[in-house]
Amino acid sequence: MNIKTIFPAVILGGCALGLIFTFSTGGAAPKEIFFKVYPIGTVRKKSGKTFIEIKEKYKDGLLGLDEFSHVQVFWWFDRNDTPKKRSILQVHPRGNPANPLRGVFATRAPVRPNLIALTTCKILSIEGSRIYLDNIDAFDNTPVLDLKPYMPGLDAPSNVHLPQWVPRHRRDIRNCPPPLTGPKR
Amino acid sequence: MNIKTIFPAVILGGCALGLIFTFSTGGAAPKEIFFKVYPIGTVRKKSGKTFIEIKEKYKDGLLGLDEFSHVQVFWWFDRNDTPKKRSILQVHPRGNPANPLRGVFATRAPVRPNLIALTTCKILSIEGSRIYLDNIDAFDNTPVLDLKPYMPGLDAPSNVHLPQWVPRHRRDIRNCPPPLTGPKR
Repeated sequence: MNIKTIFPAVILGGCALGLIFTFSTGGAAPKEIFFKVYPIGTVRKKSGKTFIEIKEKYKDGLLGLDEFSHVQVFWWFDRNDTPKKRSILQVHPRGNPANPLRGVFATRAPVRPNLIALTTCKILSIEGSRIYLDNIDAFDNTPVLDLKPYMPGLDAPSNVHLPQWVPRHRRDIRNCPPPLTGPKR
Repeated sequence: MNIKTIFPAVILGGCALGLIFTFSTGGAAPKEIFFKVYPIGTVRKKSGKTFIEIKEKYKDGLLGLDEFSHVQVFWWFDRNDTPKKRSILQVHPRGNPANPLRGVFATRAPVRPNLIALTTCKILSIEGSRIYLDNIDAFDNTPVLDLKPYMPGLDAPSNVHLPQWVPRHRRDIRNCPPPLTGPKR
């Protein structure tokens, strides 16, 4: 927002014309540093198909993504974007009271201070600005913030252990490695 | 920022007192939707140790994170937070001109529209509001936005393929699975 300080003469002019000004009260709350994130696209679920529609202005960023089998989709839990939900710090994982109370940073809960969600998805095809996916656990119309190619050497560590409350389908290690191929670089 | 519409009478009062108002010009640029993300902590690299210092107000969110071996750290490429760098959509991966030009969404480049970075880290220990890590590819003092526990069943897909330009250490699949343990839930 463009803020300007104007001088009494300008104010007087406005007063003479009977204008209504919109102005900042200055605010008493301490300033907290923040960063801005902008939707680069949107999750679409239509006619049994799931895709991400990338905004025209970001389309050039997709060059070469079709060479990867999987993409990390960073999206925004937009339905939970309220101060109250962003202040929740502990939950029973998966909303199950039988699970122990845990910090949101120890869960994948959709309520957390910054509503960043991450889903690693299989790419079916890319057509223009549409990335067709096998599935994503986000609603239709969800804002997408970033895409990164999935790289096992960065994203899949070894010697993993997890607490008992994590359900089996989340602890399964699905990527038993095929023999390594490709150049040594 | 707290914005209020005030009426001519109030303006007149201000004028009479010769006050200087700060007001919004309204701006001509079209409004683009954005979301705010707030640092929950900071990367620290001190005396050969690497840790994340979580802000006091978010400390309760760590409960139970110590039960996981690995954490996904979402951080902000704060050194690149300029309109120019956020407008870059294509790069030569890893800054190597021998690599083909690729869209930023097909790379892990630190320049991208939303400067969200993701590093999966091994947790060494958690002491109070400090999470000691084996390593992280972020500078000292980098803002941290979110933490999520690494769960292979969500984060490590199978049947992965990658383009030739991805270097070997990024294509290695490190987590050859140990036998599955834990309850079926």
